Amino acid sequence: MRIIVEKDYEQMSITVMNLLLAKMYENRKMNIAITAGASPKRMYELLAEEVKNGRNFDNVTYYNFDEIPFKKSGGYGVTVSNLKKDYFDPAGISMDHVHTLTVENHKEHDALLESFGGLDAIFMGIGADGHFCGNMPGFTKFGNKTVEITIPEAMKPALAGEVGGDMEEVPDTFVTMGPRSVMNSKSTIMFATGKGKAEIIKKAFFGPVSEDIPSSVFQLHPDFTLVLDEDAASEIKDLI
Amino acid sequence: MRIIVEKDYEQMSITVMNLLLAKMYENRKMNIAITAGASPKRMYELLAEEVKNGRNFDNVTYYNFDEIPFKKSGGYGVTVSNLKKDYFDPAGISMDHVHTLTVENHKEHDALLESFGGLDAIFMGIGADGHFCGNMPGFTKFGNKTVEITIPEAMKPALAGEVGGDMEEVPDTFVTMGPRSVMNSKSTIMFATGKGKAEIIKKAFFGPVSEDIPSSVFQLHPDFTLVLDEDAASEIKDLI
Amino acid sequence: MRIIVEKDYEQMSITVMNLLLAKMYENRKMNIAITAGASPKRMYELLAEEVKNGRNFDNVTYYNFDEIPFKKSGGYGVTVSNLKKDYFDPAGISMDHVHTLTVENHKEHDALLESFGGLDAIFMGIGADGHFCGNMPGFTKFGNKTVEITIPEAMKPALAGEVGGDMEEVPDTFVTMGPRSVMNSKSTIMFATGKGKAEIIKKAFFGPVSEDIPSSVFQLHPDFTLVLDEDAASEIKDLI
Amino acid sequence: MRIIVEKDYEQMSITVMNLLLAKMYENRKMNIAITAGASPKRMYELLAEEVKNGRNFDNVTYYNFDEIPFKKSGGYGVTVSNLKKDYFDPAGISMDHVHTLTVENHKEHDALLESFGGLDAIFMGIGADGHFCGNMPGFTKFGNKTVEITIPEAMKPALAGEVGGDMEEVPDTFVTMGPRSVMNSKSTIMFATGKGKAEIIKKAFFGPVSEDIPSSVFQLHPDFTLVLDEDAASEIKDLI
Repeated sequence: MRIIVEKDYEQMSITVMNLLLAKMYENRKMNIAITAGASPKRMYELLAEEVKNGRNFDNVTYYNFDEIPFKKSGGYGVTVSNLKKDYFDPAGISMDHVHTLTVENHKEHDALLESFGGLDAIFMGIGADGHFCGNMPGFTKFGNKTVEITIPEAMKPALAGEVGGDMEEVPDTFVTMGPRSVMNSKSTIMFATGKGKAEIIKKAFFGPVSEDIPSSVFQLHPDFTLVLDEDAASEIKDLI
Repeated sequence: MRIIVEKDYEQMSITVMNLLLAKMYENRKMNIAITAGASPKRMYELLAEEVKNGRNFDNVTYYNFDEIPFKKSGGYGVTVSNLKKDYFDPAGISMDHVHTLTVENHKEHDALLESFGGLDAIFMGIGADGHFCGNMPGFTKFGNKTVEITIPEAMKPALAGEVGGDMEEVPDTFVTMGPRSVMNSKSTIMFATGKGKAEIIKKAFFGPVSEDIPSSVFQLHPDFTLVLDEDAASEIKDLI
Repeated sequence: MRIIVEKDYEQMSITVMNLLLAKMYENRKMNIAITAGASPKRMYELLAEEVKNGRNFDNVTYYNFDEIPFKKSGGYGVTVSNLKKDYFDPAGISMDHVHTLTVENHKEHDALLESFGGLDAIFMGIGADGHFCGNMPGFTKFGNKTVEITIPEAMKPALAGEVGGDMEEVPDTFVTMGPRSVMNSKSTIMFATGKGKAEIIKKAFFGPVSEDIPSSVFQLHPDFTLVLDEDAASEIKDLI
Repeated sequence: MRIIVEKDYEQMSITVMNLLLAKMYENRKMNIAITAGASPKRMYELLAEEVKNGRNFDNVTYYNFDEIPFKKSGGYGVTVSNLKKDYFDPAGISMDHVHTLTVENHKEHDALLESFGGLDAIFMGIGADGHFCGNMPGFTKFGNKTVEITIPEAMKPALAGEVGGDMEEVPDTFVTMGPRSVMNSKSTIMFATGKGKAEIIKKAFFGPVSEDIPSSVFQLHPDFTLVLDEDAASEIKDLI
């Protein structure tokens, strides 16, 4: 476990971008899964600038690692739509370089990744409950590969925000790479920003490895890097 | 997870030897942890022949991953004594090429491995209870690094066999690399022989990932190879 | 440059086999080019035994690196015919796992290899004139990629032996991966046996790098291994 | 050979920095040789900003690959002095992280590098005469390892500029890693800017491999990357 602490969100974004570029610049085909969401927004702004200025990353195939479909409208789901908006479109990356995981194709996802030689790297955020990808506590087990998960009725109103506020768009299921699929990636990289993540960072990486805190599983990965800003690292200062 | 099934113990031994030689022949320094015990005896016989015939593996440093000290006599513990007898001595390997983990130095073991660049590979057997190294169910947690474990009084008579039948040699503690330390190895390789292992093989690698069956943790390793003879694979024939 | 000296042809054959198996056992797709000829005959005998006993090397694709076509009969050329006879057939390897370089497809060979991620390893012999693959002194330059070479009339009688003694089978051209294509392989391995090679071994690896001795180019490769028996190493004993 | 063309010096500098950061961010010890001179000045300005903002690259050891000593004053030579001024000092890198090649220690340089596991990467410029490091045409052969070279009297006035204009500082010899030592690096990266380099770029990478144009040797390296701005690439536009 390598822990990198940066002074603020901007520096954390630069470092995560550099770690991602480091994979992209390898002189061979690279399979890289990346996260949507709020934490990487600045990183994608910076990265899009780098990428659109003409450098050629034809060696890179991008993957989403979870997906929430729009029930009514269909098309790309929430994750890929956000990745398009935040990164692929501003960077001028054609969807030919993106392999989209969907509810429909998720059963073939692990076999397909294996046939491609597996993921070289996966870049993830962490939730305040310790979730990574769609692995919320109680939803998946460490042994799960890519799975479809039924969304409890009680959770649907909270999900409406993700699909644009329209309850009719909230799907009945979503898909996610499970812990086992994610742990198969050669490198795993997680990043977090802000005081709101400080407590879970301590629990996940300095507490027991437990399915109650899904991200704690990365204590067991041979090539795991955690990038934090000082706020997110505030509870572990004396431990590193 | 790569599973290789061989027809019998002899072929399994050859294949494990070949996997070990593959690491030894890499054109760089290699840190390799290896197991003592009954399962690898034939493999070490074959390997000692290969190694003693003059090929030079100065690039290899060997490690034991657990140790049971002799309480009365001291000196090398059970694991390293057996490795010497079964492999190092017949192969003509000097103890200069062996880093011995002991009760005395175990607290520095993880930091030391990290300073050496980490283990490149670890070769292990599996117990009928699913243990690997000294990680018996209930003795360690997935999050444990290298640890010293107090031996319950009730278990001491059973341990006497390991130390030559003399109860006065049974120690109060032993040391083992914990799951977290082992999972940090770049490659992990496990092998098993015989009908007696068939049931645990199915549970550990086709059941849930759980501390109740410590070896199930290898479902989560990005480079794990399992080598079995047909007997050990008899319960998983339809699953692979 | 790593130099391994074995006591005789048998041990050299075992070591070259082990180096080849080391590549085959990697837990990913491997592209490996191998040599036909007299030197590897014993190695292939040993290897075929290993491979035919049921272990599965579906991850390996084999390549020939040169080819002399049969002018009259067509079909597989001299190199692939010999590889079939000496290794693929006894080992039970289907030709589906072999990519055959031919006069017809040689112009696409380098681009094809690149699209496959390049060669992981190439195993070669060395000629008494210092040639490797079909790179005889004066026939190719260091900068050559895969090329078709016109056979001088004066050389044709000597070549008749290769094609079964029938002058009508001697072709007008042959193909070979050139020095530049071979040097692109991630690992390069060369082996030699017998007093007859001792002189060229000294010149090629302890003399100047020069197109006059094509194999001297491997002094410049970052992962080159040379395996010799004591006879072949007899002129360099004091240099290593 | 991977060729990356950027629109101008600024973009070329960013890309070379990203390639260097990609090596620095690897999660293991890295040995990296870097060039002084005019071409990398902007790259080092950008990189120093990245590095001094607190990220920790304790895993990186830097090497110079040639050195011109100051004859009168002694101390660090021309290359390391420039690296200090342009990069190490502004970036806040302690000289503890730099291994300095000197005239005094050059005979041990290759053995030392080998004991450290070899160079992971070397970043170089190219001269208008095709030289790299101190390998001017006619001064070294492809087979040379690290060598001390006697400076011809006729060349000394031209060298005065390098040592601050004082003829008394011009040394009698300088040292450089030779082609063989440089080719041993796992990755080799070269960059060039401006019209003045366009002609040599074409000759070195699209002409014959020859000691007359030392940089042509990189056509033979399995992991070579060439980064150019549009001016430096102007003569090879139709070839890539």
